Amino acid sequence: MRYLITGGAGFIGSTIVDKLLEDDINEVTVFDNFCSGKLSYIEKYLNNKRFKLIKGDLLDLSLIKESIKDHNFIFHFAANPDISKAMIETDLDLRLSIIATYNLLEAMRLNRIKKIVYSSGSGVYGDVGLTETPEDFGPLMPSSMYGACKLGSEAIISAFCNMFDMQSWIFRFANVIGKNQTHGVGFDFINKLKKEPKQLTILGDGTQSKSYIHVNDVIDAILFVAKKTNEIVNIYNVATDDYITVNEIASIVIKEMNLENVIFEYTGGKRGWKGDVPIVRFNLEKIHKLGWKSKYNSKEAVKRSIREMLNKEVVAKK
Amino acid sequence: MRYLITGGAGFIGSTIVDKLLEDDINEVTVFDNFCSGKLSYIEKYLNNKRFKLIKGDLLDLSLIKESIKDHNFIFHFAANPDISKAMIETDLDLRLSIIATYNLLEAMRLNRIKKIVYSSGSGVYGDVGLTETPEDFGPLMPSSMYGACKLGSEAIISAFCNMFDMQSWIFRFANVIGKNQTHGVGFDFINKLKKEPKQLTILGDGTQSKSYIHVNDVIDAILFVAKKTNEIVNIYNVATDDYITVNEIASIVIKEMNLENVIFEYTGGKRGWKGDVPIVRFNLEKIHKLGWKSKYNSKEAVKRSIREMLNKEVVAKK
Repeated sequence: MRYLITGGAGFIGSTIVDKLLEDDINEVTVFDNFCSGKLSYIEKYLNNKRFKLIKGDLLDLSLIKESIKDHNFIFHFAANPDISKAMIETDLDLRLSIIATYNLLEAMRLNRIKKIVYSSGSGVYGDVGLTETPEDFGPLMPSSMYGACKLGSEAIISAFCNMFDMQSWIFRFANVIGKNQTHGVGFDFINKLKKEPKQLTILGDGTQSKSYIHVNDVIDAILFVAKKTNEIVNIYNVATDDYITVNEIASIVIKEMNLENVIFEYTGGKRGWKGDVPIVRFNLEKIHKLGWKSKYNSKEAVKRSIREMLNKEVVAKK
Repeated sequence: MRYLITGGAGFIGSTIVDKLLEDDINEVTVFDNFCSGKLSYIEKYLNNKRFKLIKGDLLDLSLIKESIKDHNFIFHFAANPDISKAMIETDLDLRLSIIATYNLLEAMRLNRIKKIVYSSGSGVYGDVGLTETPEDFGPLMPSSMYGACKLGSEAIISAFCNMFDMQSWIFRFANVIGKNQTHGVGFDFINKLKKEPKQLTILGDGTQSKSYIHVNDVIDAILFVAKKTNEIVNIYNVATDDYITVNEIASIVIKEMNLENVIFEYTGGKRGWKGDVPIVRFNLEKIHKLGWKSKYNSKEAVKRSIREMLNKEVVAKK
């Protein structure tokens, strides 16, 4: 199988590159603009004959048209990782999510490539408090441009699948964390505490409560669902069965960094930023019925990812 | 109140201009690129001091930013009227729907304009057969770029409302018909039969069955709902309570044109074109509960619109 991974030098993308290249029959092309992706995540493959790297941007339609030739399966992970930035640069997600996704689909159509995995997220559901959202939840009223443009991208994928006989697997992920993460609350806390180990500024009031899933579980879910399902458009929530607050994450980071007497400062309000969704609850019946559950719960995933980011030893869970 | 109507020289837009200018306290600006809009629909207002015409395109962000100043309420009707064209020009709806809507919202944000009415449609629901879709139906898997980009636009409106304290009324309309319509099945049948009165080519098998609503009912619903509701994002289906097939519409057109012995030719298949949704069923409980029902049913609306297009006398229903 010949895979092309957009955002393949990024956090989730580079992790799936690792996984796919474990199998000798797979060939992998990484397509990345290195805005948030890092060469260090994939440089070990640069001399691998089954690996190819293309430095390029999905906004360059002619380049992606050319690059995509002769692949069978597209994994689309390229995205804007900074959700809050849309408050000042309102067209950021429009370009990096919707237009990028459209260009990719158009390149697929022109090259008769039929299969795509898309990395969506809980942002499509908007701010619905403690409601556990199943995949058929509605009405969908996203509260951030990030969520809105994920939903717009899902919709365009659905239209292309129907109009041009393609097939898609759309995953609405919880907060994905792990070794190569380039953003996110745990990542931020480590960086802040390395600079200033006595004080930690927390956005909002720290009670924001969401599911955090380890990237290894995410890769596992993608490959499991893609193998087991065969609808034209396959939409699945992927999350842990539990939740963890920002305050609890802060405590784990402090403990793993062996710090003491850290003073918490809160920016206040329920939300980390305008458009942030403070509470996220997934309904996971659909993926459970298919036979998949996460290996790590949120607390385990956070602890593991913090240790990985700190380059501490981690033990794989059986 | 100072209204700006995008697509204000088009079918639905020009009809609401008529309605709004009936009230002396209203001022109306029409913003239209005249791709499908017609000067003849609004030229009677060109010397009206409460009316202003701007020939411009929503893809020109700096023009809409300037044009929108000092308005209180935006009615966003500009759209690509040709749903099937996306099969060959796949980015048409992306530009004319999503990017145009984003530009409009950005212009509103920069000018602190808070209220928008958006003309969406049944296309957001995808092809779900006889299922009567309520506003909270899911999962939303549009089967055309037209529907996908309506959904993407809804999502971006929702995000802007949440992030920048705006308020929106999103209407998912059935097939809207009436005097100034510039496209649609009845419109096409009249034009075809004027050229060739002995034969009529029908796309698909003629059994496509949908709700057709008269534009006067649509304007009535918009003003009724905007007055009665006050959520941040207000989403409403607007349709008649019944349905009519393409074959029945053909018969009405032939009768109203006083033709006989017309031979029907079918292009075949269930759909008029790839991405067409052959059966559309709305759940209308939400708008019924609010106290609104259409004055004309589908058959009455079709008959009335055909007579209006043929410049025949119509009698208003009380």
